[in-house]
Amino acid sequence: MRKFLDEDFLLTGKTAQRLYHEFAKDMPVIDYHCHLPPDQIATDRVFENLTKAWLDGDHYKWRAMRANGIGEKYCTGTADDREKFSQWAATVPYTLRNPLYHWTHLELQRYFDIDEILNPASAGRIYDTCNERLQSPGYSVLGLLRKMKVELICTTDDPLDSLEWHRTIARQGSIRVLPAFRPDKAMNVEDPAVFNGYVDQLESVSGLAIGSYEEFLAALKKRHDFFAENGCTLSDHGLEHIDAETYTHRELQDVFNKIRSGRELSQPEKAVFRSAMLVELAVWDWEKGWVQQFHIGALRNNNTRAMRSLGPDTGWDSIGDFSQARSLSRFLNRLDTDDKLAKTILYNLNPADNELMASMIGNFNDGSVAGKIQYGSAWWFLDQKDGMTRQLNALSNMGLLTRFVGMLTDSRSFLSYPRHEYFRRILCNLFGEEVDQGELPSDIGRIGQVIKDICYHNARNYFGW
Amino acid sequence: MRKFLDEDFLLTGKTAQRLYHEFAKDMPVIDYHCHLPPDQIATDRVFENLTKAWLDGDHYKWRAMRANGIGEKYCTGTADDREKFSQWAATVPYTLRNPLYHWTHLELQRYFDIDEILNPASAGRIYDTCNERLQSPGYSVLGLLRKMKVELICTTDDPLDSLEWHRTIARQGSIRVLPAFRPDKAMNVEDPAVFNGYVDQLESVSGLAIGSYEEFLAALKKRHDFFAENGCTLSDHGLEHIDAETYTHRELQDVFNKIRSGRELSQPEKAVFRSAMLVELAVWDWEKGWVQQFHIGALRNNNTRAMRSLGPDTGWDSIGDFSQARSLSRFLNRLDTDDKLAKTILYNLNPADNELMASMIGNFNDGSVAGKIQYGSAWWFLDQKDGMTRQLNALSNMGLLTRFVGMLTDSRSFLSYPRHEYFRRILCNLFGEEVDQGELPSDIGRIGQVIKDICYHNARNYFGW
Amino acid sequence: MRKFLDEDFLLTGKTAQRLYHEFAKDMPVIDYHCHLPPDQIATDRVFENLTKAWLDGDHYKWRAMRANGIGEKYCTGTADDREKFSQWAATVPYTLRNPLYHWTHLELQRYFDIDEILNPASAGRIYDTCNERLQSPGYSVLGLLRKMKVELICTTDDPLDSLEWHRTIARQGSIRVLPAFRPDKAMNVEDPAVFNGYVDQLESVSGLAIGSYEEFLAALKKRHDFFAENGCTLSDHGLEHIDAETYTHRELQDVFNKIRSGRELSQPEKAVFRSAMLVELAVWDWEKGWVQQFHIGALRNNNTRAMRSLGPDTGWDSIGDFSQARSLSRFLNRLDTDDKLAKTILYNLNPADNELMASMIGNFNDGSVAGKIQYGSAWWFLDQKDGMTRQLNALSNMGLLTRFVGMLTDSRSFLSYPRHEYFRRILCNLFGEEVDQGELPSDIGRIGQVIKDICYHNARNYFGW
Repeated sequence: MRKFLDEDFLLTGKTAQRLYHEFAKDMPVIDYHCHLPPDQIATDRVFENLTKAWLDGDHYKWRAMRANGIGEKYCTGTADDREKFSQWAATVPYTLRNPLYHWTHLELQRYFDIDEILNPASAGRIYDTCNERLQSPGYSVLGLLRKMKVELICTTDDPLDSLEWHRTIARQGSIRVLPAFRPDKAMNVEDPAVFNGYVDQLESVSGLAIGSYEEFLAALKKRHDFFAENGCTLSDHGLEHIDAETYTHRELQDVFNKIRSGRELSQPEKAVFRSAMLVELAVWDWEKGWVQQFHIGALRNNNTRAMRSLGPDTGWDSIGDFSQARSLSRFLNRLDTDDKLAKTILYNLNPADNELMASMIGNFNDGSVAGKIQYGSAWWFLDQKDGMTRQLNALSNMGLLTRFVGMLTDSRSFLSYPRHEYFRRILCNLFGEEVDQGELPSDIGRIGQVIKDICYHNARNYFGW
Repeated sequence: MRKFLDEDFLLTGKTAQRLYHEFAKDMPVIDYHCHLPPDQIATDRVFENLTKAWLDGDHYKWRAMRANGIGEKYCTGTADDREKFSQWAATVPYTLRNPLYHWTHLELQRYFDIDEILNPASAGRIYDTCNERLQSPGYSVLGLLRKMKVELICTTDDPLDSLEWHRTIARQGSIRVLPAFRPDKAMNVEDPAVFNGYVDQLESVSGLAIGSYEEFLAALKKRHDFFAENGCTLSDHGLEHIDAETYTHRELQDVFNKIRSGRELSQPEKAVFRSAMLVELAVWDWEKGWVQQFHIGALRNNNTRAMRSLGPDTGWDSIGDFSQARSLSRFLNRLDTDDKLAKTILYNLNPADNELMASMIGNFNDGSVAGKIQYGSAWWFLDQKDGMTRQLNALSNMGLLTRFVGMLTDSRSFLSYPRHEYFRRILCNLFGEEVDQGELPSDIGRIGQVIKDICYHNARNYFGW
Repeated sequence: MRKFLDEDFLLTGKTAQRLYHEFAKDMPVIDYHCHLPPDQIATDRVFENLTKAWLDGDHYKWRAMRANGIGEKYCTGTADDREKFSQWAATVPYTLRNPLYHWTHLELQRYFDIDEILNPASAGRIYDTCNERLQSPGYSVLGLLRKMKVELICTTDDPLDSLEWHRTIARQGSIRVLPAFRPDKAMNVEDPAVFNGYVDQLESVSGLAIGSYEEFLAALKKRHDFFAENGCTLSDHGLEHIDAETYTHRELQDVFNKIRSGRELSQPEKAVFRSAMLVELAVWDWEKGWVQQFHIGALRNNNTRAMRSLGPDTGWDSIGDFSQARSLSRFLNRLDTDDKLAKTILYNLNPADNELMASMIGNFNDGSVAGKIQYGSAWWFLDQKDGMTRQLNALSNMGLLTRFVGMLTDSRSFLSYPRHEYFRRILCNLFGEEVDQGELPSDIGRIGQVIKDICYHNARNYFGW
């Protein structure tokens, strides 16, 4: 019986252990997609306590607490920070076999050198110890990032963002933090009032009057240029599925004018608008040599009561079962036909579509760039051992794992970086087990190089940093 | 090499073995969903022979026999019981790696103390031995249930059922057998004649005239009340997918009047009717504090020839690929928005949807009850080692396995109870292996408690028995 | 640590090793579905070099090379054969964990007795050695087939094919090579010009004038008869999904006349035509006692640029997510209702549908023939360890693995036969591991017989050869 979470955690054989300790462990981290707040990096925030650093904004933990019968007061509500932590600690023993159980104890070990299991008995002691450490040197936001060898971070930013914090960080020179262009709101035509509010803001931020679809594009393009000037080299989209309808320029103008006049769009009109926007944005990405990312398949905001009281991204989303293959193919092909397909990463939320996605990327790998079209790492609900393993296996079976750009946190928390370690251990174990079984040659040098590539070098080369 | 089906069957390590033998093995069985005939419990039926007890009504076995090239005569047909058994015995060696192979030999061991492999050579001997035992004390229906430590059974009953057998059993006090309210026929508007026949019967059973949609609901509600008076605390639905269309009260009235006048409904009209009925029934469940169950995703009655000659539930159903996420979310949200969402169990027949379902339940776990929305145990075709493992892993990764209400037989046979043992072994092995690999702490006390909860206590608490 | 690709490759325990070496290894190969060119068998082609034998036409390798950033020139382009091989050799180290890595080295070992790893350092040496051997006795096409114990091959042929090469081979008597009837083009009504060109050719080949739908069927039926006269006993279809619409004879005539007049069909008209053709063809198969095969679920020709420059089947296809269950059921049921359902093999490209397919076959296994409806071996992108394992497990859990007709190459290359060995090792390992764990009885004789059946006898019996 092995000790829980020892140094060979998730590494079942000697080869896996060697691969991890000799090749993976010490590689720096490039976190090319996350939702970290740049202001907290720029101001090098010091967290008042562990609840602020660890529970605030963490919808994974809230979901687990709610499933455990713990009321909203202790998740997003008015309970004080110690009470909230206490309820989280009471939930942890009920998260056995959920990734939260692993993450929780990895994070306590890696950031705080705490080996204890978190439960109601240890909760007070752990809370006090962590709170104390959080006030000590090396536990500010920059300290936490350095502890985890984080070399570069890409945040996720709305086109309207001023990027002032990114510029502050760039001037400080303490760590590289690049923005990523996420124009979801510019494509969200569900509600005319919301869309028009966004367009009005875009007018103001861009300094360009928006009286037509062309002017809307011009203003948005100006923000795209502005992001590029501030070091941005990648975009991102969060979509249920890709729209790839046919349309005429005239239709687009009509649709745009209709929503601008405050009228609701029909479903086909919405799809036409999104289809066109996706192509416009993708062409800009291609023109600038950016990488474009697509996070596909989430069914969001399922709970109206919670949406009204708490807003989005508070733990009420789930996995959808949208039809994906045909429209995704059509969209990528549209760009490829004009030879304007940028480097692309597809992230998929429904594991039933793993093989669909892993085979889709092969249709547009045209030999121009190694690993041009990527099947992105296991995402959100899938960001756990089974999910990662299945993504890695699907990619291995249908594409080239060796060219994979690897892990990202996708997190809103500075305490999530052990997920890179988690990924690396799983990766090393897959290779290690197959070497031990004679399914791969025991060429540790070559396989170690592959591990280092997936952990670090591939991303660096792919994004051109 | 391990002996087939020894005491550590399916338990690969010492920890798994300890978890099973010390914690799981002796827990009583709560079978909260099955299709057992209450009359046979009330009359404490003694089976004439093994074919009557084991093969009659068992569409799993018939499907295997047909796939093995054995004619209908020996499945549902006119062959005598010994011939039927003989053909089943000839099929068993061809079921290697099918769950029937495990179930068959587990059932022979557990009920009849027979360790032999069933095949043509052993068939006669086994048939005779079992037949003899079936006549001995302890092999009546109640004897068989006691042998398996069955404490409580929920049957599956039509709203028109008189529940007289349930009342007889309650009076006898030998075992708790509760009805479950399954109104599938009240929602089945495919064929006007069938539906109207049902409504006529409902009129007669409820003693209420049904001249309108409102009166139809009132009569059905009266049955719901009657079931509650007879100890029912849960409902069940068997559906391809959840309908969650929008509708007005006026539309419902029109649809009801149309089918009552003998005219066929259009597809949208059917969907509207089912959408409304699902909400009405769910609200009643919520008002009474019942648990509602949804069995989703079966594509039934695929074979018209067989349907005509043998009727439903004779082995011609399969796994569908219906679109599930959006409408399921909409339905649950509709109830949740009015704060009228009862405790709910979702059972899913297509394993491609495992993660979809396991993430869906998290959208409506609002902290009011631990494990309020459940992802039900692997069902029907999935009721085997791979299927159970995948359901348990999906639930673990996306929810709280520790709050799971666990196994049920869903069976029509009194000889199916070793499926609970099968489930428990698989469950203990998942935990045991992870402890041995250092992926879980070796806190056997805590994990043993979790095992006992999933085997027994969680169901008891959840259903309030 | 085990040596890579040693004699117990993929066989993790003693029982698996015994099963493979004693039962599977020496069984002859029946390759009942492939795309080998019969002319090369008839002329007993000798390959000029390894590129011609191994890389030409191999879209699996091309996809890997393109994903590795290697230009089209070295895949399908103008580079010379040595350069092409050199680029492939440079790609091989990047295919770790892709089935190509296993296939490549298995093929070098089995055909050429080369144990070396292929990489840039060994490329020249291996190329020269193989080229030399390819000129030696025993390395002609027939030599390669004999080396792999290939007993019978079914090619894949258009109804218009003259089958002259098949007749030549039959006269020679060196190996059995049977045609298979693949009428995809006769059902492809996407483009009137393409369809009408095909009908014109059919007129000419059949010698029958085609002025109506009935005459079209008559001419096609004449080819079906001609194939039967030349030893054909199976058909094949490559389809995104099965069409099973309702239609009248009059509608069919109208649709046929419309496309013959050069007008494009609407989507419903195309579906009606395909629905009817599928039934017509299936009835002919049933009348002749043929086996019908359906390869379902590919999304083809995703890349327009490549389609224009390289044509189909050059590596731009992927896995679709079509709705499958309902229409597949309706189609099979239509035939079964008339008692005209031929023996049928369903191949599925999306592993999310594995269980759907494995349960679907049970709906039409009517007891008339053992294993009448088959769930075919893992196909195309799924033809690797994970894919095969999942197909075998789905079939085991939902049907009778023991009645499975087993492996086929589906290949265009004479160097693909080690895939049968690959399949056999995986098959033996599944059984062997379960015996070792006590999940199956240690009845090696019985299980060995099952292995031999799946490797050889089942196919032979099923196809009636």
